[in-house]
Parts: sequence; structure tokens; C-alpha cells
Amino acid sequence: MAERFEIVEKALLAMLEEKKYSTLKDILVTMNPSDVAGLFDGLEEKQIPLLFRLLNKEQAAETFVEMDPEAQELLIRGFSDNELKEVLDELYVDDAADIVEEMPANVVKRILKAADPEMRSSINQILRYPENSAGSIMTTEYVSLRPTMTVEEAILRIRRQGVDKETIYTCYVTAKDRTLIGLVTVKDLLLAEDDEMKIEDIMLTNMIFVNTRTDQEEVAHMLSKYNFLALPVVDGEGRMVGIVTFDDAMDVMEEEATEDMELMSGMTPSEKPYLRSSPFDLFKNRIPWLMLMMVSATFTGLIMTAFEDALAAQIALSAFIPMLMGTGGNSGSQSSVTVIRGLSLGELEFSDIGEILWKELRTALLCGLSLAAVCFAKIWFIDHLLLGNESITLMVDLVVCCALAVTVILAKAVGCLLPLGAKALKLDPAVMASPFISTIVDALSLLVYFMFAKALLKI
Amino acid sequence: MAERFEIVEKALLAMLEEKKYSTLKDILVTMNPSDVAGLFDGLEEKQIPLLFRLLNKEQAAETFVEMDPEAQELLIRGFSDNELKEVLDELYVDDAADIVEEMPANVVKRILKAADPEMRSSINQILRYPENSAGSIMTTEYVSLRPTMTVEEAILRIRRQGVDKETIYTCYVTAKDRTLIGLVTVKDLLLAEDDEMKIEDIMLTNMIFVNTRTDQEEVAHMLSKYNFLALPVVDGEGRMVGIVTFDDAMDVMEEEATEDMELMSGMTPSEKPYLRSSPFDLFKNRIPWLMLMMVSATFTGLIMTAFEDALAAQIALSAFIPMLMGTGGNSGSQSSVTVIRGLSLGELEFSDIGEILWKELRTALLCGLSLAAVCFAKIWFIDHLLLGNESITLMVDLVVCCALAVTVILAKAVGCLLPLGAKALKLDPAVMASPFISTIVDALSLLVYFMFAKALLKI
Repeated sequence: MAERFEIVEKALLAMLEEKKYSTLKDILVTMNPSDVAGLFDGLEEKQIPLLFRLLNKEQAAETFVEMDPEAQELLIRGFSDNELKEVLDELYVDDAADIVEEMPANVVKRILKAADPEMRSSINQILRYPENSAGSIMTTEYVSLRPTMTVEEAILRIRRQGVDKETIYTCYVTAKDRTLIGLVTVKDLLLAEDDEMKIEDIMLTNMIFVNTRTDQEEVAHMLSKYNFLALPVVDGEGRMVGIVTFDDAMDVMEEEATEDMELMSGMTPSEKPYLRSSPFDLFKNRIPWLMLMMVSATFTGLIMTAFEDALAAQIALSAFIPMLMGTGGNSGSQSSVTVIRGLSLGELEFSDIGEILWKELRTALLCGLSLAAVCFAKIWFIDHLLLGNESITLMVDLVVCCALAVTVILAKAVGCLLPLGAKALKLDPAVMASPFISTIVDALSLLVYFMFAKALLKI
Repeated sequence: MAERFEIVEKALLAMLEEKKYSTLKDILVTMNPSDVAGLFDGLEEKQIPLLFRLLNKEQAAETFVEMDPEAQELLIRGFSDNELKEVLDELYVDDAADIVEEMPANVVKRILKAADPEMRSSINQILRYPENSAGSIMTTEYVSLRPTMTVEEAILRIRRQGVDKETIYTCYVTAKDRTLIGLVTVKDLLLAEDDEMKIEDIMLTNMIFVNTRTDQEEVAHMLSKYNFLALPVVDGEGRMVGIVTFDDAMDVMEEEATEDMELMSGMTPSEKPYLRSSPFDLFKNRIPWLMLMMVSATFTGLIMTAFEDALAAQIALSAFIPMLMGTGGNSGSQSSVTVIRGLSLGELEFSDIGEILWKELRTALLCGLSLAAVCFAKIWFIDHLLLGNESITLMVDLVVCCALAVTVILAKAVGCLLPLGAKALKLDPAVMASPFISTIVDALSLLVYFMFAKALLKI
């Protein structure tokens, strides 16, 4: 599918080069706006307005929404006031607000000037809500009904108002003061037995709604949990102010998962797509954590130095340090990632801490003991007998394996407790993943290792 | 929100204990099925059928779908044939197929026997498709229209057929042989200017569809990209066989992100929720990778042993090994996670390999040089001057920092190339994340370190 699409893309771009505008126009009109937006990625700056002007009015607006901010800015700067107004009139309010957020101040000014007063005030309203809140991703355009309307009146209202609304399929019933009192779906209206039935008799009143300040991740999980097309957003007084639709929730879910993965691997999350990020952008996102981890490795260095004599006396011991630290790090990150994901999907809460710790400790015991047993055999038969390394005695083998088992148990405990601690402190648990945990587990595993060496080898 | 809900849950469970059934019934009827299903988690086995029988018919079925497989199995085993039939009749086909997949053979037999012939054949059809394919998550219940119908006839048909369909909002226009030829939304129908217009005149024909064998992850991304409510699924001959709806796509997105995170941290993905997994379940998912990584650390051990003499001569060198390997591992996993996520979101393709490698190398150079510079100063001023470690000479410092810079560059190259290589070999790129890359980078960083030590310290 993707490959076939690339071929089509190339053919279309060739037509643009060869100025076959009318053929191009005929093909563009049959394409989905998301795919048309994809075409712009392959264009040079001066070709962008050229291709854009080949789109009809409605398609132009839908395509504009899907383009990336750089191309949008370029187009807006080239638009006449009239062209800008035409595009804006076709946009949904939440999309317009998204675009405004990405633009520099002078472009924002032009957009707000060109928007009609109603859209201008809606955009301003959405922009006032904190980033990542329900208010900031909602749209203020939805169909509202009154409880006293009949089914027929409701359908008429949808027909009259529907064109401009992002979804017409869920309609919200509000009182005169805009308090949310119920919802009705178009399915309910169409399947109602009698057109004269009152909305208040068929509406659902056990409402699930969110507040303007609810975190966008929670909004997305609620939409997914309840399988809703849209979720109503109310203000502090219970008055309906907007809706979040499933497609925005899908974007949030992807975005939040990417963010968690980036945090988990020690990167500052960035909304800029990889292929459009410069090496310097990537450097800025990655270097802080690398620096922090490098400097905090001073501790492991100090531990190594403190036990320098032990190492010098039994140089065979050093060969197992990478394995020990690696296994500890891997064990810890398994537990931390499991807990982080559980917390972020709402499957785990801080209050589950006892159950989690107990489960992890038993798992750690199973993992630690079996790793130690296999490691013991491996060292003895491969390193000692097969490779003939005489300095690896039975006692050295024992030290390594005891340290391994204890390290795995400590690593799993640290791995599950740190994200839970972060959650309790209202920090993002995803920060407490591999890089951070490795640094702690590295130090712990060395300490455990040298303790066992001192005790068993008497050095 | 979540805390408030827990209080309600406790109050309801107390009512069940106190046998206040009629009050409980009145409250349950106002609740959302997802929330009712949540109640069952806190129940003892014998209470489950008790609470379930308090639900009305429709709510019972909707709640049943949201419950976890253990509770579903328990209920089915307790149902009379009639009760089972009643629940099944209310289910959507794709939900029924999901349930059948989770049940042991003898329960499946009972379910298929109780289902009406049409549902039985649909379930069998869905179960035949490979796991994680569009066919396996689709539903076969959708509204189909004929191109020659008028708008009025279409609305009538929706009203007649709609009750049983998972979504009525997107209707699919098929030819006599069931070939998919277009789609019409209820919005189009309601907003059509004239009820006598023909469907073929208002339908969209530039269709986006998937095949029964399309991977579920791709289906979810397409739904999210195009903001569709549902995506039609066709067979090899272009005949319409079902639809995948946005709510199933949301579940797939969550599931796939969790799977990637689990693979990335060296765990076998499992669909069993954490709190219901036994320590032995967790052990089974985690031990294979830990074992593999531990055994493959034999290589790093061999390298350490080979350079034993160098280490013995300059014991100060060993203190920096954890820092070097840690920084290498972190640098590599940053690149690999970025590439893995890009591949899984469809933002990157194997064909971008040149651009990715070039970007990563420049980023690596920036990271490597700045880490080396800071590290050089840190070692000299803190370890040498402040902590007074005389064995750390300027030359040792130089060896560490040169090795650090080279390690970071190698790590980032390995980190971006391995997932791309996995993609080319049609393996899951997520396997090529931290644990795997650390093992390789550990070995590389040691080699580089000892090379520099040999060359600069002449040992």
C-alpha cells in the first residue's frame, strides 16, 4: 500500500514540474486531504503555493489542516487577505486553534484579523486553557438541543446547523443556562418510533463528561474506555463549553505513547517529526540526560576506586562486572517499564504499591535464582574448563552468582518503586526508566559484588 | 475522578453484601457498562453471577463484553442455555468473536451452539483470519446500500436495519456482487438537499479500504490518519466483508504501543493485565531475554580477560568502565527508540536509511564531543585534583575521553541501523532496543577503550 502510494506521489509531482495543471487538478479532486497534504512534503518552497492553488475551496482547507507548520506558515505569508479568509472560514475551530498555536506572533495577528468575530473569540477561548488540558484540544462547535424539542425538531435543527459541526452524531442537551443535562445520538433520533417524542424522554442522562482542566491523556483514555465518538467538556459551573472528538483522542494517544517512550530512553520529548529535526535539535533533546548520567557515574567510579585493591588481588573479578551491571539494568528496566505503562494506562495506581512490590519480589526471586544457577554452570564449564581460565576458582564463581541473584532482586525492587514514587510526587513516572535506573542499579550491583568478594574471598 | 469513582464502587459492593438488591438495581441501570464491568473486579467468584443477574438484558450484554475473560468464563459456565442465548443475541459479532477466542474449547462449543446460525457463521469467518489482521478485528455487521436507492430509501433502510449495527453513521454502497463501490455518511444523507437524490450521485467513490490480511497496526494508523469512524475491509476480489470501527482501532493503538514498550525493555508481550499475572507468568515473560543477555555478556567477559594485563598495569582504567558502557548504552538506546517509534508510526521507512544515518552521525558527533569535553574536565578537576587520585594521569584522562567520543558515535550508528535492519528482514524493530543494543555497545566500548589504552599508554 505505502509503496504503491509513493509511485502515485512521484507521478503527480512530475505533472507539477511539467505544468500539466488541468490533469493534476482532476486527479487531486479524487484524493483524500491527508494524502494531498503528504504531497507537499516533497515540494520545494516555491512550488507549495502553486500546488495549493490547484485545490478547490473545501479540499484546500481540509488539506491545509493536515500540512506541517512550516508549509502552513509559508502559505499564510503568501495568501492575500481574501485567500486567508476563505481558508479560515472552512476550518473547524479546534483545528484553527492548533494552527494558531504553532505560528509566530505576526502570523497569528493576521489570522485573528482575518477570522470572523465568532471564530476569533472561540480561538482565543481555546488558547487560554493550559497546554495538554481538555480545554486546549476541544472544539467549541457541537450541536446542542433543548429538552423540550421533539425528535422531528431536533433532526431539523441538525440539518440546519450540521454543515459547520465537526460531528453531528452526538448531540448535547443543555438547559437555558447552558448546563449539560443529557445527550442524544443521531442513531437514537433516527430509530425513535415516533417523531413527536420529546428529547427529554429519549435522552441519556447518566452523563460522562470532563472538565476543561482534565489532562488530555485522561480524556483519551475515557473516550477509549467508553467507546464514545465525543466527550463533552464542561466548565467549573457545569456549563457545556465544547467537545473532544475521537480523532483528536487518537492523536493524543499516539503523542503520549511517543512521549513516554522518549522519556523512558532519556530524551526530552519533542513534537517535531524526526525527518524535519536538525542534528542540533536532536542534540538538544538528548544531551541533558547523557550528561546527567555520565556525571552521576562518578559514584560507580568511586566504588570501583574504593575496591581497587580487591580488584588488583583478584583481577578475574573484573571480567564479570559488565555482565553483572547489564543483567541488573535489564531486570530493573523490565519492572520499571511494566509499572510505568500500567500507571499511564490507568491499570495501576499508587495504592497498588504493596501488591506490586510483593509480585515483583517473587518474580525477582524466580529470575534471580535461575539466572544465578545458569550463570554458575556457564562460568564453570565454559570460562573455567573449556576456555581454561585458571584464575576463575569455584569461590570466584560463587561470588559472581550470589551477587547476580541479589542484584536482580534489588534491581526489580528499585525498578518498580521509583516510578511509583514519581507518581506519588506528581512527577511523570516515565522519567524513572532504564537510564535513571541503570545508574542506580550499576552502583548497587558493584557494592553487592564487592561485599560478596570481601566476605567469600577474604580480600 | 478516579478516586471519587472508587468510593462509589465501595458503596455498591457494600449494598451487594447487605442484599439491598432493588436499590442496587436502580443505581446500576444509570451506570455505564464499562464502569459496571469494573465492579466485577472486586468480587468473589460466587458474587459474580449474583451481581450480573441484577442487570437488565441490554446492559447485561454490554457489560459482559467489557469484563475480563476469567469472569466471562465463570458466567458462561453458570448460564442456562437460555441465559447464554439471551446474552449472545445482544452482542455485536466482533465482540462475540473476541470472547470465543479467549475461551477453552468446551465453552466455545457451548457458545457456538447457542448462537443463531448467522452469528455462528460470522464468528467462524472472523476466527479464520490470522491473528492481528484486519479480518480478525472487523465486524461483519454494517449498513450496506445500493447505488440506485434514493436518499429517502436509504434513511428508511438505516432505520430498519440500524438497531443491530455497531455503527450506522458510515454506510457502504455495494454492487450486486458485493463489490465495494462507494460510501455515504448519515451526515451526507441528512444534509442532502433533496430526498429524491440517488445514492450514486452523492456517494464518495475515492475509497480508502483495507484488505482482510492488512496488519491491525496499519489499520489503526489509517483510521487515525484519515479521521474515519470506520474503515471498510474487502477480500481478495474487492468484495466488502466487514468494517473496523474507531473504538477497536483505539484498543489496537494502546495494545501495540504497550507491546513495543515491552519488547523494547526485553519482555515477551503479554495480553494479561499486570495485576492478574502471577509471578510465574511474569517470570516466563522476562527470563528468556535476561538469560540471553547474560550469556551473550560472555563476549564482554572475554574482552576484559584478554586485556587483563593492561588493566592490571593501569588499575585506574577500570574505574571508568561502568561510565563508558553506561553512556554508550544510553546513546544507543536513544537512537534506537527514536527509529523504532518512527518506523511503527509510519513516519520512517527503510528507504530513509541514508538520511537517518547521516542525521544520527552528526548528532553523535555533537553529543560525543561535548560529553568528552565535560568528561575530560570532570576527571581532571574532580577525580584528579579534588579527590586527589594520583593514578589518574593526563594520559589516562585522554584515553577515557577519546574512547567516550568514539563509543557514542558507534553506539548511535548501531542504535539506528539495527532496527532498520530488522525492518528490512521483516522482523519487529522493537526487539532491537536497549537490552540488545547495550550488549553490543558494551563489547564495542570495551574494545575501543583498550585500543586507546594500548596506543596512548603503551601498555
